[in-house]
Amino acid sequence: MPAHHLALTRAELAGDPVDVAIVANPPPGSLADLRGLRLIQSLWAGVDRLLADATVPQQVPLARMVDSAMNQAMAETALWATLALHRGFFRYAANQRAAQWLPHDQRRSDEVPVLVLGYGQMGQMTAKRLAQQGYPVTAWRRDAGQVPASLPGVQVATGEAALLAALAQTQVVINLLPLTSETRGILCAQLLSRLPTGAGLVNLARGAHMVEADVMAALDSGRLGHAVLDVFATEPLPTDHPFWRHPRVTVLPHAAAMTDARSAAQVVARNVDALATGRPLAHLVARYRGY
Amino acid sequence: MPAHHLALTRAELAGDPVDVAIVANPPPGSLADLRGLRLIQSLWAGVDRLLADATVPQQVPLARMVDSAMNQAMAETALWATLALHRGFFRYAANQRAAQWLPHDQRRSDEVPVLVLGYGQMGQMTAKRLAQQGYPVTAWRRDAGQVPASLPGVQVATGEAALLAALAQTQVVINLLPLTSETRGILCAQLLSRLPTGAGLVNLARGAHMVEADVMAALDSGRLGHAVLDVFATEPLPTDHPFWRHPRVTVLPHAAAMTDARSAAQVVARNVDALATGRPLAHLVARYRGY
Repeated sequence: MPAHHLALTRAELAGDPVDVAIVANPPPGSLADLRGLRLIQSLWAGVDRLLADATVPQQVPLARMVDSAMNQAMAETALWATLALHRGFFRYAANQRAAQWLPHDQRRSDEVPVLVLGYGQMGQMTAKRLAQQGYPVTAWRRDAGQVPASLPGVQVATGEAALLAALAQTQVVINLLPLTSETRGILCAQLLSRLPTGAGLVNLARGAHMVEADVMAALDSGRLGHAVLDVFATEPLPTDHPFWRHPRVTVLPHAAAMTDARSAAQVVARNVDALATGRPLAHLVARYRGY
Repeated sequence: MPAHHLALTRAELAGDPVDVAIVANPPPGSLADLRGLRLIQSLWAGVDRLLADATVPQQVPLARMVDSAMNQAMAETALWATLALHRGFFRYAANQRAAQWLPHDQRRSDEVPVLVLGYGQMGQMTAKRLAQQGYPVTAWRRDAGQVPASLPGVQVATGEAALLAALAQTQVVINLLPLTSETRGILCAQLLSRLPTGAGLVNLARGAHMVEADVMAALDSGRLGHAVLDVFATEPLPTDHPFWRHPRVTVLPHAAAMTDARSAAQVVARNVDALATGRPLAHLVARYRGY
């Protein structure tokens, strides 16, 4: 759904008290000075923009969207991108434009290790779907403290040393990290230089995870064979941005996983009901850690 | 692997007796007059060309390749194509060429019914993988006599009436049928006209399953939203063929599933050993039915 259609506007509120603000990427300042606010419920999974807006009341509980349909959509996009990178379907598309009939070698999925950065709800769903297809999956989480139960075929790694070790064995990197001060710019030259030549990068999280110049340099050096990018520093991606025309970049319009209004409405209703009846709120953001 | 590299040549044989001919799409006539031949082992899953070659000795057992790596590769290609059709990734690729940022609506996988034509080894693996992703799958088999055990989430249909009924409910049709006199030209105007507007067609079996002019007409009328075609009447697809340049056709160079030399060699070795030790041969073709 278009993000701003759901944002509250100050004029509509006309000074009445507001218990719950249900927001999807509202313009900065939208939530300042709302009287009586007891819950900010995001319709997006990523709350980095809300956290960056200093006018959002800091003492009001903030809940992320955790929507099973959105998690599944994210896993679908990650799986599609991995299959396309593994089986060379992006190269075939380029060959088609030149009317070039050129089958290339076929690897088995168990020969294509995939590294999933981020092991929250979306990372877990993605890792599970990839493992079901036979990919050897490593799921990396920065924080060693809260690692979810392991899934069949998924190896969980935590901490920086484990990340650097995993990169050298990786054919496809999928970024599903939350954007925090710890993860901003993580997809940089230093990380990319650890990958084997020709690896694939799939960024489905936030544009600010990438150092765009480093990604471009890694593509041009051949370190990266192909990048699938759904998110960018500036969105919509400006029409003159070189990613649009790079032969080994697939640009998606921030569409890897959209909130599904049907299931998201139920998630919101449950939290509103919890607020009304005094039960614990779900999916609360820990502001200090940023997600 | 390139097909003809594995074909025996008459010159190499120099008149010696030959027990087993291990062949991958050999030129017609290659197997005529081999003395002592006791088994023809195909390295391809589809044996329609061998059956069409009247010089292939009719009394010699003919075995198809049934290779788990090839089955898995086929399921990967089918899943990739289905995900791309379902989530609009082909449209996004077209939009990228115009630097157009245009997210579109997102459906859940359980809203995208998929029809798999053919329910042999490849059809079963494909149906299973699609059902794991939440797609409602109907697997259709012409012959009601030999239906394999059903899989979770997969509805099996047989016979022509069931096919026509299933088509009306289908968003994506995947063809994995063997090419026989019964299935030649099955992807024709009559079948395509049963599909809902904008459905996707994925032909991974044989070019002769398609009436090319009918597929092109269905694309141009909008009946078909997109076609993913791996196989063609003439291969390599001639450079002036309109499929190469159609904006809603994805051309693959007969690469949906290649024989994997490692696992295929074991399949062949088992059959050669069975021949030597008098055990039953596996994956024999019933010439009367064509697969």
